[in-house]
Amino acid sequence: MVKYPTGSLTPYAKENNKPFSLQNKNKHKKAKSSVNFSDRGMTLEQQINESNKFYLIQDIAVVHKKPTPVQIVKVDYPKRSRAVIKEAYFRQASTTDYNGVYKGFYLDFEAKETRNKASFPLKNFHEHQIVHLDKCLKQKGICFTIIKFVSLNRYFVTPASFIINAWNQIDKSSVTLDEIIQNSYEIKSGYRPTLPYLDVVDKFILDRN
Amino acid sequence: MVKYPTGSLTPYAKENNKPFSLQNKNKHKKAKSSVNFSDRGMTLEQQINESNKFYLIQDIAVVHKKPTPVQIVKVDYPKRSRAVIKEAYFRQASTTDYNGVYKGFYLDFEAKETRNKASFPLKNFHEHQIVHLDKCLKQKGICFTIIKFVSLNRYFVTPASFIINAWNQIDKSSVTLDEIIQNSYEIKSGYRPTLPYLDVVDKFILDRN
Repeated sequence: MVKYPTGSLTPYAKENNKPFSLQNKNKHKKAKSSVNFSDRGMTLEQQINESNKFYLIQDIAVVHKKPTPVQIVKVDYPKRSRAVIKEAYFRQASTTDYNGVYKGFYLDFEAKETRNKASFPLKNFHEHQIVHLDKCLKQKGICFTIIKFVSLNRYFVTPASFIINAWNQIDKSSVTLDEIIQNSYEIKSGYRPTLPYLDVVDKFILDRN
Repeated sequence: MVKYPTGSLTPYAKENNKPFSLQNKNKHKKAKSSVNFSDRGMTLEQQINESNKFYLIQDIAVVHKKPTPVQIVKVDYPKRSRAVIKEAYFRQASTTDYNGVYKGFYLDFEAKETRNKASFPLKNFHEHQIVHLDKCLKQKGICFTIIKFVSLNRYFVTPASFIINAWNQIDKSSVTLDEIIQNSYEIKSGYRPTLPYLDVVDKFILDRN
């Protein structure tokens, strides 16, 4: 690691400023080295984060990704340098990854990618995510998932109720692409925002009234 | 540290399962060793977390504290043991600590303690918290702060608009207790929930209609 004259790690740290994700570590690097035309080389998480930044700056909505929950055990406080966490563990999250507010509505959603071409395996969802979405639905939140079929380059905004129902069927281990098409709104990736998922939220709001 | 036969740190970890907070580390221990009558020995954060747990279990509201944002640099994967984060840094948060959904409304708030007896110093708020509360207000979220005067054992639910206005006055470094009384609803700590702040949210909802 490069140590800067002040002993600070800040310049090094800045390069790594994005939320850590084990699965996306390599994709991440790939995305950096390639020129970024719309969704090319971006993970779904990056596309959603970009979109949220756009929505935030334009005062359209306030949606943030929740930080990875970490249980911190040991912290060092080096002189003239910022605190370094020396021992910590990943904790189980109790919610979905994204929530926020849009036109007075509470939004809550989870983003999932699959390399499959004809179905989406339900094991991609963790039980706590299903339970959380169900709890938020009871409180009249607008709850959904954004599913990306990476190989097909197709994006679906699927109501949480459909996913919860599928999850609760004991004999069902996946939902087919056809089922997703029938129960979702498809969105196309674009430029500003990268992924215009609020267009679908507008439809959910209309359906509600 | 106790290493268990499997090499797992899980039993040790479980004791530390609560979100880490530098300031509250010692208070935390104190709270554990004392019998817990209502708010006695609990920090404001603990009181709110307890209340949120109650609201969640009773299907009254879904409100969670956001995890501390951490930028992870190095992770070890020991055999037969869970991943250990070996190097990480605290990141600047971009939101408040708490948000969630209640009866279709988006809630967003920050909790602050002071040992002062006659005023609340505005430097307790960080700029990003004020900016975030303002952004959420524009999206019609219900935004507020819960202020605890520790020495007085008094709790106030204060609309974010009041705090933002005070913060934006250049010559103002604190708000007096009187100002807080005039612009807030006072709540009393109790048993179930520990801090019934949703009673005030109900008033905010009524005021709105």
